[in-house]
Amino acid sequence: MNLYHNLAALLGQRIEQGLYLPGQRLPSVRTLSMEHGVSLSTVQQAYRVLEDQGLAVPRPKSGYFVASGWRQMPLPRTCRPAQRPVEVGQWDLLLKQMRSTPRADVQYLGGGTPDIGAPTLKPLFSALTRISRRHDPAMLRYDNIQGLSDLRQQVVRLLVDSDCQLHPDEIVITTGCHEALSTAVRTLCKPGEIVAVESPGFHGIMQTLNGAGVQAVEIPVDPITGISLEALELALEQWPIKAILVTPTCNNPLGFNMPEERKRKLLRLAQRFDVAVIEDDIYGDLAYGYPRPRSIKSMDQEGRVLLCSSFSKTLAPGLRVGWIAPGRYLEQVLHMKYIGTGATSTQPQMALAEFIAAGHYHPHLRRVRSQYKRNLERVSGWLSHYLPTSAGISQPQGGFLLWIELAEEIDALRLNEHLGSRGYEFAVGNIFSAAGKYRNCLRLNYALLQGNTMESAIKALGHELKDASLA
Amino acid sequence: MNLYHNLAALLGQRIEQGLYLPGQRLPSVRTLSMEHGVSLSTVQQAYRVLEDQGLAVPRPKSGYFVASGWRQMPLPRTCRPAQRPVEVGQWDLLLKQMRSTPRADVQYLGGGTPDIGAPTLKPLFSALTRISRRHDPAMLRYDNIQGLSDLRQQVVRLLVDSDCQLHPDEIVITTGCHEALSTAVRTLCKPGEIVAVESPGFHGIMQTLNGAGVQAVEIPVDPITGISLEALELALEQWPIKAILVTPTCNNPLGFNMPEERKRKLLRLAQRFDVAVIEDDIYGDLAYGYPRPRSIKSMDQEGRVLLCSSFSKTLAPGLRVGWIAPGRYLEQVLHMKYIGTGATSTQPQMALAEFIAAGHYHPHLRRVRSQYKRNLERVSGWLSHYLPTSAGISQPQGGFLLWIELAEEIDALRLNEHLGSRGYEFAVGNIFSAAGKYRNCLRLNYALLQGNTMESAIKALGHELKDASLA
Ligand SMILES: Cc1ncc(COP(=O)(O)O)c(C=O)c1O
Ligand SMILES: Cc1ncc(COP(=O)(O)O)c(C=O)c1O
Repeated sequence: MNLYHNLAALLGQRIEQGLYLPGQRLPSVRTLSMEHGVSLSTVQQAYRVLEDQGLAVPRPKSGYFVASGWRQMPLPRTCRPAQRPVEVGQWDLLLKQMRSTPRADVQYLGGGTPDIGAPTLKPLFSALTRISRRHDPAMLRYDNIQGLSDLRQQVVRLLVDSDCQLHPDEIVITTGCHEALSTAVRTLCKPGEIVAVESPGFHGIMQTLNGAGVQAVEIPVDPITGISLEALELALEQWPIKAILVTPTCNNPLGFNMPEERKRKLLRLAQRFDVAVIEDDIYGDLAYGYPRPRSIKSMDQEGRVLLCSSFSKTLAPGLRVGWIAPGRYLEQVLHMKYIGTGATSTQPQMALAEFIAAGHYHPHLRRVRSQYKRNLERVSGWLSHYLPTSAGISQPQGGFLLWIELAEEIDALRLNEHLGSRGYEFAVGNIFSAAGKYRNCLRLNYALLQGNTMESAIKALGHELKDASLA
Repeated sequence: MNLYHNLAALLGQRIEQGLYLPGQRLPSVRTLSMEHGVSLSTVQQAYRVLEDQGLAVPRPKSGYFVASGWRQMPLPRTCRPAQRPVEVGQWDLLLKQMRSTPRADVQYLGGGTPDIGAPTLKPLFSALTRISRRHDPAMLRYDNIQGLSDLRQQVVRLLVDSDCQLHPDEIVITTGCHEALSTAVRTLCKPGEIVAVESPGFHGIMQTLNGAGVQAVEIPVDPITGISLEALELALEQWPIKAILVTPTCNNPLGFNMPEERKRKLLRLAQRFDVAVIEDDIYGDLAYGYPRPRSIKSMDQEGRVLLCSSFSKTLAPGLRVGWIAPGRYLEQVLHMKYIGTGATSTQPQMALAEFIAAGHYHPHLRRVRSQYKRNLERVSGWLSHYLPTSAGISQPQGGFLLWIELAEEIDALRLNEHLGSRGYEFAVGNIFSAAGKYRNCLRLNYALLQGNTMESAIKALGHELKDASLA
């Protein structure tokens, strides 16, 4: 740890201990420089770290302030799921939810869609238009089974941000991250075999295991540091686990970034027990801090890690373009890809390759990342204002998803129905568990605040929570 | 059978018996009308039947002629594959083929791509352009898991051509027919279970079984009437078969249309043994005859048939839009679809919905159908001219694929390598069998003749076949 990290840690502690209150002004750069005998630029760097952690916010010309709302509320508790392999349930619930026709009078605030209205996406529409207009027959042909070579080259360039050095031939383009994940699971596991997953974890991951006939061992997750390596080790000792499936960067639903050292330890565990790692990095590029965290894949020398990702969260999900970097499993993955979809739609791939090559990816990222971070700030404020203090709230380090843990006795499904009649809906917690845990939790998408919709929704949530009939 | 059918059958027999030779003029309409005491229009209808069967061709102002080339060559033999469940092989070969970078100096004539350069596809480019240009955010959003409602409505309208009456909610849009097929297989079968398939059969189907860990019983196929119902019945008696997977209309690779009565019998067999039917109808709308043949699905009252199809052969494969009408298996199919790809790319679905709604589908079909039929005519002529008379040639009733069976001792793989050095390549037969049969067979795509490329390729094939070293 260097000087500015030390200083940031110290200030962070003071904020957390309540020495500086939310909204309060923090000591000036000059004061701290004198107090700690460090340079002005060291203090500035320390403040930038606090900013990245969401603890401090700069206000032009007036210095740094404690982020309002932040850290006032407790974190969600680390759950202790039953650590034995179970079949994944909850499909009925999820299907019902997905098939219900959207009601015009209900705002769904629980989805996984990013801000697709950002002006920085305009060049993407232009690329799509350009390609269609030039009547390029390539867009009507079967694409190469591995995916458009131009796009794989661009993906490889983007992967450098997470310290991954890959060759375009090590990438397979997929129809979204969904296909990357199911391809990885089906490559590694036969029905009846076991995969270790984070709990809570993305419902698509849970259902992928279910659909492949694979059992899940749910491993508890710390809301700040990610999957419990101790619990994971225990599970690896106890069960013939085939793969570890994690979303270690900007996790869905908890938003944590697993510290680099813990990522490294996870990889070492995988080596020791000789199991594969499926790393879902779909939100990784949306980390609020700079540079973005390294992926586990970047530490992998043996081709043990299958990196799964897509443009669904960074750009737009409707394109259905993702990828997998399957390491030593390339040939089996190609087989699964071939039978799964044959190839991925060509035109979206062409448009993405042009969009990235023309340098439009990073400006868009910068824009939405700071938008999401700003939104989080405000949403945290509303949550702390309207929700009972017993509610636990996650502290996302990236992305646009927030996890709310309510009092044990609350049934989020019923709560959501009540909210529906007020015009709002969230995602309910139990689809984030193989065994249907987290019935008292909700997930919220803060990519867009939609005028005062978001505040009203959180207010409505607060009102409902005062209603005892929910328990 | 009515009058004109009787007359057509009689004339057909005479052509087949060699009473009228290829290229020869057939009796005039007036002559036949007098000879058989039927009306002029009955004779004209009979000639239209012969035309649909590819036996007769009209020449403006000079009447009907025997199709040149046609029927001179023997049919491929009905193969007798070992009728026990086997694991599907041939993936290595197929993968090698798919990954090899296309050589600029070699024309690949074995693929499955239709004519995507037809001017009747222009409105599709326009639709794609229009949608991109209006910056419709819908195209960037996650589509409904079941697929775009507008498109499902259009699909249901098109299905009426094959006598299918379905509701849009009975359709699930997929990423190509590949996803429809793998979804169907995974819905119906667990690893180790057994599916009955046509032999020869589309390699994608074979690999789908392999990838799902499912075993294949290869059932022999008659090159004119399709799957042997006798052999199928025997297999159903002998093995715990879960599903019958067939391509009964414009079959790939043989091009037959299974007669309606045999389709009905197949369905009755499925009922008797209580197994599901997966019907791949991807080429069905390309049948040369009018109206197009009914699908097995259209005869199904119980939701036993899962109809799989796509726009890959009728319009363009690069769109990657297909569908499945899964009957009683809808919920499980949605599950498999969800984990497979989440949703299908939105913009291609929107463009297709607009293209079909604006009435562009049938004009395109009419155009390519008659082009393919015309090409077949010419290709048959070249084959009969350049190939040894021992070669068996299929008689496609639709689509754009032709199956060539060479002398038993020919190794098509080596033959293809030799051809490669002359600048041409076909698809080799053994990928069309689970057990690697048909080593002496080739498949040819005649969607485009490409100037004199096709004739030169067939000429080169003929030359190679005179070279004894291939055996
Ligand atoms: C963690 C995670 N992985 C994968 C996916 C699926 O991504 P895609 O839309 O690219 O299939 C999501 C989408 O919600 C997700 O949150
Ligand atoms: C019989 C058959 N079924 C399915 C497919 C795959 O179709 P799609 O490209 O729509 O996935 C093909 C393509 O060659 C085919 O010939």
